[in-house]
Amino acid sequence: MPEVYAARRERIRECCTAGGSATALVTRPANVRYLAGAAPRGAVLLMGRGEDLLLCAGPPSGEVGEGRPDEALRVQVLPRAGGDPAVAAADVAVAQGAESLAVEENHLTVTRHRAIGSVAPRLRLGDLGGAVEQLRVIKDEEEISCLRIGAEIADQALGELLESILVGRTERHLALELERRLVDHGADGPAFATSVGTGPNSGRRGHRPTDRRVEEGDFLSVCLGATYRGYRCEIGRTFVIGTSPADWQIELYDLVFAAQRAGRESLAPGAAYRDVDRAARQVLDSAGHAEGLPPLTGHGVGLEIDEDPQLAPAAMGKLDACVPVTVEPGVHLPGRGGVRIDDTLVVRPEADGGPELLTITTKELLAL
Amino acid sequence: MPEVYAARRERIRECCTAGGSATALVTRPANVRYLAGAAPRGAVLLMGRGEDLLLCAGPPSGEVGEGRPDEALRVQVLPRAGGDPAVAAADVAVAQGAESLAVEENHLTVTRHRAIGSVAPRLRLGDLGGAVEQLRVIKDEEEISCLRIGAEIADQALGELLESILVGRTERHLALELERRLVDHGADGPAFATSVGTGPNSGRRGHRPTDRRVEEGDFLSVCLGATYRGYRCEIGRTFVIGTSPADWQIELYDLVFAAQRAGRESLAPGAAYRDVDRAARQVLDSAGHAEGLPPLTGHGVGLEIDEDPQLAPAAMGKLDACVPVTVEPGVHLPGRGGVRIDDTLVVRPEADGGPELLTITTKELLAL
Repeated sequence: MPEVYAARRERIRECCTAGGSATALVTRPANVRYLAGAAPRGAVLLMGRGEDLLLCAGPPSGEVGEGRPDEALRVQVLPRAGGDPAVAAADVAVAQGAESLAVEENHLTVTRHRAIGSVAPRLRLGDLGGAVEQLRVIKDEEEISCLRIGAEIADQALGELLESILVGRTERHLALELERRLVDHGADGPAFATSVGTGPNSGRRGHRPTDRRVEEGDFLSVCLGATYRGYRCEIGRTFVIGTSPADWQIELYDLVFAAQRAGRESLAPGAAYRDVDRAARQVLDSAGHAEGLPPLTGHGVGLEIDEDPQLAPAAMGKLDACVPVTVEPGVHLPGRGGVRIDDTLVVRPEADGGPELLTITTKELLAL
Repeated sequence: MPEVYAARRERIRECCTAGGSATALVTRPANVRYLAGAAPRGAVLLMGRGEDLLLCAGPPSGEVGEGRPDEALRVQVLPRAGGDPAVAAADVAVAQGAESLAVEENHLTVTRHRAIGSVAPRLRLGDLGGAVEQLRVIKDEEEISCLRIGAEIADQALGELLESILVGRTERHLALELERRLVDHGADGPAFATSVGTGPNSGRRGHRPTDRRVEEGDFLSVCLGATYRGYRCEIGRTFVIGTSPADWQIELYDLVFAAQRAGRESLAPGAAYRDVDRAARQVLDSAGHAEGLPPLTGHGVGLEIDEDPQLAPAAMGKLDACVPVTVEPGVHLPGRGGVRIDDTLVVRPEADGGPELLTITTKELLAL
C-alpha cells in the first residue's frame, strides 16, 4: 500500500511543477488522508523539494477508522502551544529553500492564508485548486473494495430494520437504531447523519429526523451509509407502512423508480454528467414535478460523502470507468410526503457488465 | 424572543460602523444562527442599510433543533441552480448602494472571498473579525437555560449507563448507547462525537471509540454532551471497573480531581483565562505530568462545543459573569490509561453563590 500514496503524491507534484510551484501544501483533511494514508486532527501535508512531511497538531492515534500514515512520510508533531500546522509547514518550506508554495485556496480561510503569508513573506503563494479532488475521482480497486464492503454493511443494517416493528417508533429512534446496526456490522461509523422521514417528511433530501412517529399509511424514507476504512457510501429507500399503498403512493413510487432507473442506465464511461442528470430529471419533469426538484440527482462518493462529480444540469465533464456515484432522484409533495430512491454504483464499461450496483437492497415498493 | 435577535444584530452593526463598514455579511453557521434565530444549510446573513436579509440555499425546514428564523428578517431562498448565497448577498449589497462590506475572513475560504470580490469589484471588502464570536461569549439567561437542560439530559444518559452491565461491551457500543439515551431524554442530538475510552485508551481527550471491550480493572472514561435548542454542553467522567481500584488508579484519580477542583474554584468574574488554566495545570505539573498535557484545560460552550474563551497558558483575557466554560484537565499515561474529569459551569459572582455547576453527576471515584 505505501507505494500507492507515494504514486498519488507524485501525480500531485507533477501537477504543481506544471503550475510553476515545486512545493505544495495540502490542508483539506480528505486530501491529506488520500495522499498520506491518515489525517490526524489538524494535520497538513507538505510536499516539497526534500522529503514529504506530515505535520500534526497531536500524535496520530493509529485507529482503524483513522488510517495510518504512510511509512515513507516523515511525521512531525507540533509542540503543545497549539499553533497552526499550516503555518509551521510554510516555515519548513522556506527553510527548504522553496520560492513558491501551492495551497488549497478552496479550503484555507482568508485568515489562515494571510497567516501563512505573514510567516513567509517571500514565499509566492499559488493555488493548488482542486488538483487532489480531481485525482480522487477515479478510484482504484482497493478503494472500490472499501466502498463495496461499506455498501454491504448498509444493506445489512437496513434489512434488519425492515424486519422489526416500525409503527409507533420515532424518526430519531429509527435513525439511531440504523447507526447502531452499521457499527454492529463493522462500519467505522455512519457515513453521514442518517435521515429517516415519515409521512409528510418522507422523500425530503437530507431530512433531519424528528420526533414524529411512524403511522399506518405513511411513506417511510430512509437514507443511510457506512464508513469503512474511511470510504463512504450511501443508500436510500422508500417504503409504505401498512398493507395497501394508496394509488397516489404507487404512482409516485413508480415515477421515481423510473427516473432512478433512467439515471442508472445512463451511467457509462464517456457519458456527460449533465446527461445522466437529465436522464433522471426529465422523467420527473415530464410528469409535472419540475418545481422543487433538488439541484442534483447524484454525486461522487469516496473519502467524503459528497465528492466530485456532481450530476447536475450545469455540471461540466464526463464520467470515467471506476468512478463511484450515487443516483438519487426524489419527489417531495409538501404536506403529503414523497419518495427518494438512492443507490451507489461504480461506472464500468459495458464489456465489464455495465454499472456495478453496490447497494443491492430491493427497490420494489415494499409494504411493511 | 425576536427582539433578542434584533438587539444582537444592532450590536454587530455598531461594531461594523465603528470599523468603517455600514454593511456586514455573516457566513459562519453558528454566527448566522445567533443573529438570525436559524441557520438553514448554507444560509448567510446580510446586515445592510436596508432591511436585514437571510439568504438560503434551500427553504428553512423549521425543525426544533434547527430553530426558526427571526420573523423580523426577510428570508430569500436562492433558485435551484446551486449558487453561493454569500456571492448572491454581495450582489444585493451592491444593489443597496453599499460601498464596503465586512466579511468573516476567519470563516470564508480564499476561493469564496475571491468570488465575492469578482461579483462586486467596487465593493471594498473588510474583515468582521471575531465580532460575533466575541458577542456570543456572554450568555443571556435564556441561553444558559438551554445549556442547563442539555446538561441535565447528559447527566441522565450517563446515570442510566452506569446502572447497566459494562464489562464485555465495546467502546463503540457504549458511545452509541449514550447517544441514543441523549435523544431519548429530549436532546436534539449529541453535542459532539461521544468519546468512550477503556483501559489504555482511558483519559485521552477526544478519543474515538474503538472495538476494545471493557475489562475488569480498567479505567473507563466517558465524555458526552447534549445539544438542546442548538446549545451544546459537555460532561466527562472516569470510573474504574471492578470492586477494588489499584493504588495507582486511586492516586491518579485524586490528582486529576484536585486539578479539576482547583480550576473550578478559580472561576470568577475578572479571573484571567490563563490563571484558571494555571490553577488546574500546576497541580498536574507539580506531580510530574507536565509532558503530554493537552494544550487547554477548558473552553467556552454555546452554539458550538468549542467556543471562546480558551483556558490555556497563552490565552489573553478575563472571564465575565454568565460565561459558560468547561473545566476538563486530564492525564493519560501511554500504555496504561488515565483520568479526565470534565464539567460545564457558568461563571457567576461570589454574591450569587460562585460558579454554577451544570453537570452534577458525582465526581467520586466510582467502582462499577
